[in-house]
Amino acid sequence: MTPEFAIGIGANIRKSAYFDATIRAGVRCFSVYNHMFIPAHFGQPDAEYQRLIDGVVMWDVAAQRQVEISGPDAAKLVQYLTPRNLAGTKVGQGRYVPICDHDGRVLNDPVLLKLSDDRFWLSVADSDIHLWAAAIGRERGWDARVFEPDVSPLAVQGPKAVDVITSLFGDWVRDLRYFGFRETELDGIPLVLARSGWSKQGGYELYLMDSRHGTALWDRVEKAGAPFGIIPGAPNDIERVESGLVSYGSDMRLQVIPANPYEMGLGGLIDLAGGHDFVGRAALAALAATPPARQRCGFWVEGNPASPGHQVAVTQGDTVVGYLSELVYSPRLQRSIGIGLIRADLVQATDLTATLPGGPVGVIPTDLPFKIPS
Amino acid sequence: MTPEFAIGIGANIRKSAYFDATIRAGVRCFSVYNHMFIPAHFGQPDAEYQRLIDGVVMWDVAAQRQVEISGPDAAKLVQYLTPRNLAGTKVGQGRYVPICDHDGRVLNDPVLLKLSDDRFWLSVADSDIHLWAAAIGRERGWDARVFEPDVSPLAVQGPKAVDVITSLFGDWVRDLRYFGFRETELDGIPLVLARSGWSKQGGYELYLMDSRHGTALWDRVEKAGAPFGIIPGAPNDIERVESGLVSYGSDMRLQVIPANPYEMGLGGLIDLAGGHDFVGRAALAALAATPPARQRCGFWVEGNPASPGHQVAVTQGDTVVGYLSELVYSPRLQRSIGIGLIRADLVQATDLTATLPGGPVGVIPTDLPFKIPS
Repeated sequence: MTPEFAIGIGANIRKSAYFDATIRAGVRCFSVYNHMFIPAHFGQPDAEYQRLIDGVVMWDVAAQRQVEISGPDAAKLVQYLTPRNLAGTKVGQGRYVPICDHDGRVLNDPVLLKLSDDRFWLSVADSDIHLWAAAIGRERGWDARVFEPDVSPLAVQGPKAVDVITSLFGDWVRDLRYFGFRETELDGIPLVLARSGWSKQGGYELYLMDSRHGTALWDRVEKAGAPFGIIPGAPNDIERVESGLVSYGSDMRLQVIPANPYEMGLGGLIDLAGGHDFVGRAALAALAATPPARQRCGFWVEGNPASPGHQVAVTQGDTVVGYLSELVYSPRLQRSIGIGLIRADLVQATDLTATLPGGPVGVIPTDLPFKIPS
Repeated sequence: MTPEFAIGIGANIRKSAYFDATIRAGVRCFSVYNHMFIPAHFGQPDAEYQRLIDGVVMWDVAAQRQVEISGPDAAKLVQYLTPRNLAGTKVGQGRYVPICDHDGRVLNDPVLLKLSDDRFWLSVADSDIHLWAAAIGRERGWDARVFEPDVSPLAVQGPKAVDVITSLFGDWVRDLRYFGFRETELDGIPLVLARSGWSKQGGYELYLMDSRHGTALWDRVEKAGAPFGIIPGAPNDIERVESGLVSYGSDMRLQVIPANPYEMGLGGLIDLAGGHDFVGRAALAALAATPPARQRCGFWVEGNPASPGHQVAVTQGDTVVGYLSELVYSPRLQRSIGIGLIRADLVQATDLTATLPGGPVGVIPTDLPFKIPS
């Protein structure tokens, strides 16, 4: 078990639009994401998990920064950045769009929001896609502006999120489809309301479009959520492992654990047949010709070991055959589970071990998401 | 004064090769840099500053990641990435090379290490230059591999650093020029030894080339440094403000405070006359035609205010005319000082205020570095 360390609060890491509100709300622990502080917990992790599962929580996810791409060639650039075919994407529709490098390795897995025919946001995981998109666009000579707008998502997640958001915005929010969004406002606070969020418990994200209103928006959501028992929390590692959500930076990262979208279970999003050109097309076509060497999977983990706080190797005998990227104790499954990547021929293996700091522990690959008994 | 918060230790942020050694050495506080934990202090900030000034300290700066560029077109790509003219750069020579985008804004300010005619490291500040360099190189069709090698710098800084490093490697280290480096080893541990480091107190950086030896290298340096009073520390904000060192991420960042190299006092490194092509050349040529609108500067700060932990606006009356990016109390100057950017016509102004959380405080621009009485 790693002891607790302080985090340095300095100008090199940005404060979120909700920073002051989260301090007031009792945040105890931060992480850093896209060069910004992001709450990790508020001192009651068990309650934060439980309320996500059976109630409603609010999360400062402003660190999920937007990369805006706008201008005459914006649609062309956005399409060129992702192997996913965006034909037919409508204004007000969000799509999950893996971004790969020229060798077909995943660089990020943003949600794309189409705000108009020539204006898009990439709601990015933790890497500087801003730099990537700007380099590609400018080197190709396309007329598209790439920049970071003043946009700060606030997530409201859990089965009661729909009630909270309805009480704030009205019944129309119940008809929003998953990843659907609409530009709107709340008491003059400009925002985009999207049905989305990094959990499988349902919910919304409020993309605040003016950071000066961070505390005001936080307060409005907190007040509207009070009758439904809302509490502050943060993107939840336990629920994400149970649900099999991808965490770029944990499950893969170009510089740490490079992985291609076929290995990550994202192969269904790669459109080689549609004919659109994109970064990494040739590499991905070559990869698609053979089954992936590795496969993303869940793990049943023996015992109740502490999280090592980093990826660990999974071995068969003396051979490294994969890794465990995250390890949690699932209250709903009442056992330890993990997520990671395993050599594709070993998804049925029963003789694997994870090399945790305290010693080797048996792990058994299993399908994602985990099946939760109701 | 911001209270102390914990930092989340999870797989989304990498541990340095020296992580275990720094835990054992009593690290109390971390920050995050290039998606990696970096020690911020070991619980005795005053001593860590003082030892840097009059003795010797050792810093885990593995988060100063290397972007390796190698292959037949590596030299061409490296030259294209920076406005600085690299003609005449020798193997074993390091150079400070600002990297700009197509609009001439600084994206990073690495030190370049030329390892051979077709192999280079960019020792980068906190942004994903890996992505930027890979995008530029591949979109131009150049035959250069861009990747992150297993390299973890360990800094030994302070006036007695030369004695510690001499005791480890021999007298030849005294003859290394500033930014000069040599590939060598220590008891079989492969490393690059460079005369460099993010302070003006002199010192070396040991670029460990195999992270498995992190603890062993830390131990060797600690033992060799003991007779000279070495203690662990971290890149020091007070000394860097006194010395006027640039901190990308604090003083400027594309997404937060975009700035061009002329504003940042780096104009002398921009070679428009030499004829080499580079990203941002046209934009920088246009910028060079007129004096910069803003100028990097130090600030004398009234009173002894606490650091706000973020950049704050500097105003003249009601007009924002610059910002203070970092604020420290200088023990050597016995007063509060800062660093930031100010409208170029106001470098002599005496009626400016910084809008700190506790209220406005008078600031007076001054030259960098600060003159320290001996």
